[in-house]
Amino acid sequence: MSFAECMVNVSPGINDVLPTLFNFPDSFPFLVAQVAEASVEGSEAQTGPTILAGVLLSLVIIYLASKVVGEICARINLPPVLGELVGGVVIGVSALNLLVFSDVGNPDAQAFVIRFLQSTAGLEPSNVAAVSESISEVVSVLSEIGVIILLFEIGLESDLKELIRVGPQAAVVAVVGVAVPFVAGTAGLIAIFNVETVPAIFAGAALTATSIGITAKVLAEIQQLSSREGQIIIGAAVLDDILGIIVLAVVASLAKTGEIQVGNVIYLIVSAAVFLIGSILLGRFLGPYFVMLVDRLQTRGQLLISSLIFAFLLAYIGAVIQLEAILGAFAAGLVLAETEKRKELEEQVLPIADMLVPIFFVVVGAKTDVSVLNPFDPGNREGLIMASFLVIVAIIGKTVTGLAVFGQPGINRLAIGIGMIPRGEVGLVFAGVGAATGILPKSLNAAIIVMVILTTFVAPPLLRLVFQPTPETVESTQG
Amino acid sequence: MSFAECMVNVSPGINDVLPTLFNFPDSFPFLVAQVAEASVEGSEAQTGPTILAGVLLSLVIIYLASKVVGEICARINLPPVLGELVGGVVIGVSALNLLVFSDVGNPDAQAFVIRFLQSTAGLEPSNVAAVSESISEVVSVLSEIGVIILLFEIGLESDLKELIRVGPQAAVVAVVGVAVPFVAGTAGLIAIFNVETVPAIFAGAALTATSIGITAKVLAEIQQLSSREGQIIIGAAVLDDILGIIVLAVVASLAKTGEIQVGNVIYLIVSAAVFLIGSILLGRFLGPYFVMLVDRLQTRGQLLISSLIFAFLLAYIGAVIQLEAILGAFAAGLVLAETEKRKELEEQVLPIADMLVPIFFVVVGAKTDVSVLNPFDPGNREGLIMASFLVIVAIIGKTVTGLAVFGQPGINRLAIGIGMIPRGEVGLVFAGVGAATGILPKSLNAAIIVMVILTTFVAPPLLRLVFQPTPETVESTQG
Repeated sequence: MSFAECMVNVSPGINDVLPTLFNFPDSFPFLVAQVAEASVEGSEAQTGPTILAGVLLSLVIIYLASKVVGEICARINLPPVLGELVGGVVIGVSALNLLVFSDVGNPDAQAFVIRFLQSTAGLEPSNVAAVSESISEVVSVLSEIGVIILLFEIGLESDLKELIRVGPQAAVVAVVGVAVPFVAGTAGLIAIFNVETVPAIFAGAALTATSIGITAKVLAEIQQLSSREGQIIIGAAVLDDILGIIVLAVVASLAKTGEIQVGNVIYLIVSAAVFLIGSILLGRFLGPYFVMLVDRLQTRGQLLISSLIFAFLLAYIGAVIQLEAILGAFAAGLVLAETEKRKELEEQVLPIADMLVPIFFVVVGAKTDVSVLNPFDPGNREGLIMASFLVIVAIIGKTVTGLAVFGQPGINRLAIGIGMIPRGEVGLVFAGVGAATGILPKSLNAAIIVMVILTTFVAPPLLRLVFQPTPETVESTQG
Repeated sequence: MSFAECMVNVSPGINDVLPTLFNFPDSFPFLVAQVAEASVEGSEAQTGPTILAGVLLSLVIIYLASKVVGEICARINLPPVLGELVGGVVIGVSALNLLVFSDVGNPDAQAFVIRFLQSTAGLEPSNVAAVSESISEVVSVLSEIGVIILLFEIGLESDLKELIRVGPQAAVVAVVGVAVPFVAGTAGLIAIFNVETVPAIFAGAALTATSIGITAKVLAEIQQLSSREGQIIIGAAVLDDILGIIVLAVVASLAKTGEIQVGNVIYLIVSAAVFLIGSILLGRFLGPYFVMLVDRLQTRGQLLISSLIFAFLLAYIGAVIQLEAILGAFAAGLVLAETEKRKELEEQVLPIADMLVPIFFVVVGAKTDVSVLNPFDPGNREGLIMASFLVIVAIIGKTVTGLAVFGQPGINRLAIGIGMIPRGEVGLVFAGVGAATGILPKSLNAAIIVMVILTTFVAPPLLRLVFQPTPETVESTQG
């Protein structure tokens, strides 16, 4: 039977089966792209390729924003990471609303990427909600993998011995940087603004955060990551992250039961200590075996995949023991930096970080609603006045931490203090948790967000300034 | 006011706000990891970090499977990509059921990753469905980005001039490779097995597919990608992909309306031609400007991000004009291979491909239900008999394509034919679309899946065999 005969013969047979074809997609957009979706179940199978298209479009938008604003920043001598944050704000919920984030409450249908999918990819209105949530989910996870890779890279570039050597200084910086802003912020809000005690404590807790990601990125950009100041900042930021988790646990249990759940706090302290020290000790012990194993593997990507298994595993453990995934990734990087594979691994992680890290910073910017900064909106004014106070406390409270550094003659104390300023995504988490409790007045919540935004955006240029880069380092970071 | 005073003063205030705290998460697992989820809305905010943990765990499992079975394959002289597929089968829905795929109908709660999240990450039973679907979605998109990166890399390693030079041969191979299996398969099913016409045409159409991904990966592994045979296979596989889309469109419209929608077919042919030729012409024209632009950028990742913007944009366009995302990525790779940045870009894409490509192959394997291969299940026997026929047609129908190559004295015709055999994920799509129509008898559907599995798994070792690698290439692929 020939091809033509087949085509002709088809008509009689088809009529018998037509009634069963009711569910067959009308214009089968993306039919072929439904890779391996062997058991097709209604809308799920039809939305899969649309989700992929939406993620690709989102990534193109994110990369364009990161490069365009990042390049502008590089040209006016501001850190590129600030450009990525600002680029995120420009394309995000505050301004152009290009991306979709179902968790920060921008109505899906208004996001450009969704409207564009509707007009180009045949996205049906009935699928908008599901597709929006999936795209949002995938982009969020990609951004979180981005910050995991960033902390893995920072760990790889850090020197464990140096970190341990500056450990006491880092610990003092972290403790001062948590205590001073917390006490000054809480007391000031109660005394000056007549804020109730619990909301004031929440705001004080939000002042304690330090964004290890933003600080580390700026330090890497100006090639100060492995300087003594850089290592103290990184060590303090890691400890600050752990202290922040403990503060949040204390505040949250206070808000919930009126008491501090001592058991939970002890659990967090012990698990953080066991996890960080344990993974480093175990890693040092297993390091030589890891190198031996990698050397015996024969397939492509043997070093990279083995390292990623280790990094993602520690990130997973860090996440599930109520610490953070990024702490696990950082520990993994620290451990692998001690092996002889460090250089090779650094080179391989570099392009992966280039690909994934900008997603994180752009998404942080895009999810931040900066409309609370608008002084022409009368509803913002009360918040902005409180925000001015919080910003001052936030900057001074961290800047003084540099003064606490002891036994390091000639160290750049100002740089260390400035390095602890950016609250970044950690500060937003505090604001989010506060908002979730419903006990924060709207104005105070807005004030916290303003404080987070300003400290995050002001720190990178300040950090560059206080490190006073020599002409050569300017040259090489712009190379 | 001191820190201690704050703590003491808190109790009276807290009682006023307790009633509003009803929604506050009980044990706040992952509270702090809720990065930037500023407006927390019920379960969404609490599941976010669990989803990240689930994705990390899934990636660890995927990487372990790809490396363990890949290394075994490398040691018994089988292609590592086969190991990744088999590794996927082992951890997938057919066997250990470690990963969760909400679209291939394994009950979520039985997947290891979900059970593990329940016991380690405090995943609530009420959130299992939502978290499962999100993890499944993210892992699926990551695997699709993996195959996009793979085709981008293949494009980068291909030689456009050589591809154009062998274009006529590739076209003949593609057309013969579509026509012979389609006609022989359809006719045989009708004549020998008394299958109805439309289901038989569907099965015939499934026989036409070629998995460009699997073939290209094996060719790259044995370093034959840039050989004349390799380039003919790649060219033919790309054309085959386009022909496959057209065949699927014809068959689907036949099944739906009993007629061929000529307009739709013409649209597909024209859009495929315009897209591929247009993007290559435009790319060649814009190539020098691209290099100029990249050279003027100052921030990290300038070449990589610019290239990814181009690749993802073409992938997006490929997807929305009802072609495939991977064709766009391939075209982008081809275009950038013509620029002077080729070498540098290849080096940077390498680790990214190492990271993402295994996810694709493992996921393809994991989503494939090989239980239809079990001859001890009486329900499988009818399908297995038909499958034997389909496998024979599938192998012979593609192997003969090598004979159609003209004007290339001394070329390895057998290798070209063998290179077209694996149906891979494209074949699974045909099976999936067939299943969705409801017109395929269960036995025939199973037979198609068996055919896809066997051709996919048998081709990589055969391809290695017919290329008869010299000792040096064995050495370097195992290096």
